[in-house]
Amino acid sequence: MNKILIIVFFLSAQLVYAQENLNFGRQKEIISPQTNTDGTFTFRLKAPNAKKVEIQGDFLIAKGTGPAVEQMKLGADSIWAFTSQVLPSELYSYSFIVDGLKIRDPNNVYLIRDVSSVVNVFLAGAGKADLYMVNDVPHGTVAKRWYESAGLKVNRRLTVYTPPGYESSKANYPVLYLLHGVGGDEEAWMQLGRASQILDNLIASGKAKPMIVVMTNGHTSNTAAPGESSKGLYKPIMMTPDVFNGDMETYFKEIIAFTEKNYRVGRNKADRAIAGLSMGGFHSLWISANYPNTFGYVGLFSPAVLPPSNAASPIYKDLDLKLEAQKKNGFKLYWIAIGKTDFLYKNVSDYRKKLDAMNFKYEYRESEGGHTWSNWRDYLSAFAPMLFK
Amino acid sequence: MNKILIIVFFLSAQLVYAQENLNFGRQKEIISPQTNTDGTFTFRLKAPNAKKVEIQGDFLIAKGTGPAVEQMKLGADSIWAFTSQVLPSELYSYSFIVDGLKIRDPNNVYLIRDVSSVVNVFLAGAGKADLYMVNDVPHGTVAKRWYESAGLKVNRRLTVYTPPGYESSKANYPVLYLLHGVGGDEEAWMQLGRASQILDNLIASGKAKPMIVVMTNGHTSNTAAPGESSKGLYKPIMMTPDVFNGDMETYFKEIIAFTEKNYRVGRNKADRAIAGLSMGGFHSLWISANYPNTFGYVGLFSPAVLPPSNAASPIYKDLDLKLEAQKKNGFKLYWIAIGKTDFLYKNVSDYRKKLDAMNFKYEYRESEGGHTWSNWRDYLSAFAPMLFK
Repeated sequence: MNKILIIVFFLSAQLVYAQENLNFGRQKEIISPQTNTDGTFTFRLKAPNAKKVEIQGDFLIAKGTGPAVEQMKLGADSIWAFTSQVLPSELYSYSFIVDGLKIRDPNNVYLIRDVSSVVNVFLAGAGKADLYMVNDVPHGTVAKRWYESAGLKVNRRLTVYTPPGYESSKANYPVLYLLHGVGGDEEAWMQLGRASQILDNLIASGKAKPMIVVMTNGHTSNTAAPGESSKGLYKPIMMTPDVFNGDMETYFKEIIAFTEKNYRVGRNKADRAIAGLSMGGFHSLWISANYPNTFGYVGLFSPAVLPPSNAASPIYKDLDLKLEAQKKNGFKLYWIAIGKTDFLYKNVSDYRKKLDAMNFKYEYRESEGGHTWSNWRDYLSAFAPMLFK
Repeated sequence: MNKILIIVFFLSAQLVYAQENLNFGRQKEIISPQTNTDGTFTFRLKAPNAKKVEIQGDFLIAKGTGPAVEQMKLGADSIWAFTSQVLPSELYSYSFIVDGLKIRDPNNVYLIRDVSSVVNVFLAGAGKADLYMVNDVPHGTVAKRWYESAGLKVNRRLTVYTPPGYESSKANYPVLYLLHGVGGDEEAWMQLGRASQILDNLIASGKAKPMIVVMTNGHTSNTAAPGESSKGLYKPIMMTPDVFNGDMETYFKEIIAFTEKNYRVGRNKADRAIAGLSMGGFHSLWISANYPNTFGYVGLFSPAVLPPSNAASPIYKDLDLKLEAQKKNGFKLYWIAIGKTDFLYKNVSDYRKKLDAMNFKYEYRESEGGHTWSNWRDYLSAFAPMLFK
């Protein structure tokens, strides 16, 4: 009797939920992507009226100049399927293309937004992406928190990772300030970057020191990620008017002051690191140069070493003098990483030549690939273990 | 020169990003949904090869027994469009149906997952949904945090909202424990429930007292929401083996203990509230009955007043005696709300008769509609202002 009542409850709930757009009973038997024991992945879509179904993904090999696309094959019950090759460990993304229309996989609820696109993702393990997974290890706390920017005259949002044990400890912790690229916001390193998983896993294995990670929003014309501010649920764009205009670098001191007031953190240079990807690498370069005795560790991930849009700002003046001061003051690590096919490769090369000519010491990592989150996750996985040791 | 270089940077970045599945240049001119000045909304989809495009949404009026669907009309440039009626203020969800295949709107990045379905959402303002928006008011902190459950022998994840000013204050705050339904997890009240927006806005207007809100995961066989545990990126299901089996009620004391150890909170009954929807209403009923001198405020939102699956558990014994103790001990508010067309209406009616017969005082709100998040957001908006006064 009890069981029957509960089953009735679920069935009724499903009917009601269906009115709210849930699709119980629809495609419920379809698993996509399915992780196969041989290391391949199978993707499926039920599309009874489709003439042609393709899959586009960053794990496929492009045959021409366009994105990599493969045909899916029609099987029983109008289900189209495609099985990948054995995939190296990575966080991958994909879409389906049904008669020319790009869609999400209705059987995969895991989605990540990148600027104005939302794509399905999946993880292939047994390699570097094991760091990107939630494993049975102690987990840090991830907080979305607002700070007051007196300079920008608004409250702005941060993502703050505090490591396992932070709350129950009385110790001070070191801080990594982690900056995103031109397409990102304070959620990018958590979503596309898997930062909390990488830190949890590296800390659990003893490879990285417990640290606080402060993930900022580098678009000073925004207060928060799309949908998280009073701008409402607008369509995000990549180009905002604040890129390379000096505001992020000028007002970064407010973020440091907020962090040091609100968290138990060390206040020595040896307790502070700053790193960023692409635009965030540009920001990290200029912030560390303008605060030449503040950061013991600097990480430039595929940095956008480009002329600033507001070259007249004092922030962007006298780089050589600032770098000389940084060199003289000393630091533990200045780390530059870039992919061999990155479109910024030459810019970074030129910047390295400048540093070499100054006898400014840095470490350099050259990876395969280009300007991709695949590289940035990998760089964070390599950079974090070098910090605060 | 600088401007040209930066434009080159963006264009190059877009090409590179495109390889990672971004769709710059594709449908970039299309805004969907578009908020029109007259209170209507226009939805658009570019689908050159489609024969028929429909929109399904909870703001449409069903014409038969199935979900409400409207035809979209083909216009210039292969863009299908539909304009709604003037919509009452609400958080709405919708999908497109292209030749029978239900898809997400590629031009709307705002999505919410409900069990195994992901749907697009939008907000219609100038009414109750103003509380669901991020407005220019002080914002609380939202943290994802793990606690150790000694009883369940796992670490489990919570969502904790601390109100604006919590960190800079030394005061103790009251706590609302807010529980989800059978389809939810510790993210449900934040995603579908807009809890942090509702609290931020009610606190800013002085209508609700600043309070901490602890959002639990009521599925004790899970440690965290889908994708956030070591179960990996699996396909979520609604029915887990832990529903109504007594574990949530039995081990809830661990969550209270964790909260009171880790946050500056009042430890009197008058400082504690518990509320939940559907299954969470069932949990709130039984938790408050089993801890009969713990909660000053109880909210049962469309509670699933159903027989427990594990009726032999001491948790589910002697309800009348427990309610008598609760009544004798006294409380500030016992609040029950349900929609007129909810499939649990009769169950709740019967429960109210029981309370009436016992002379157990409660307040009752009967709303339009059924077992929906529309009602639960509304109930939270009504319940929070009655707390801790």
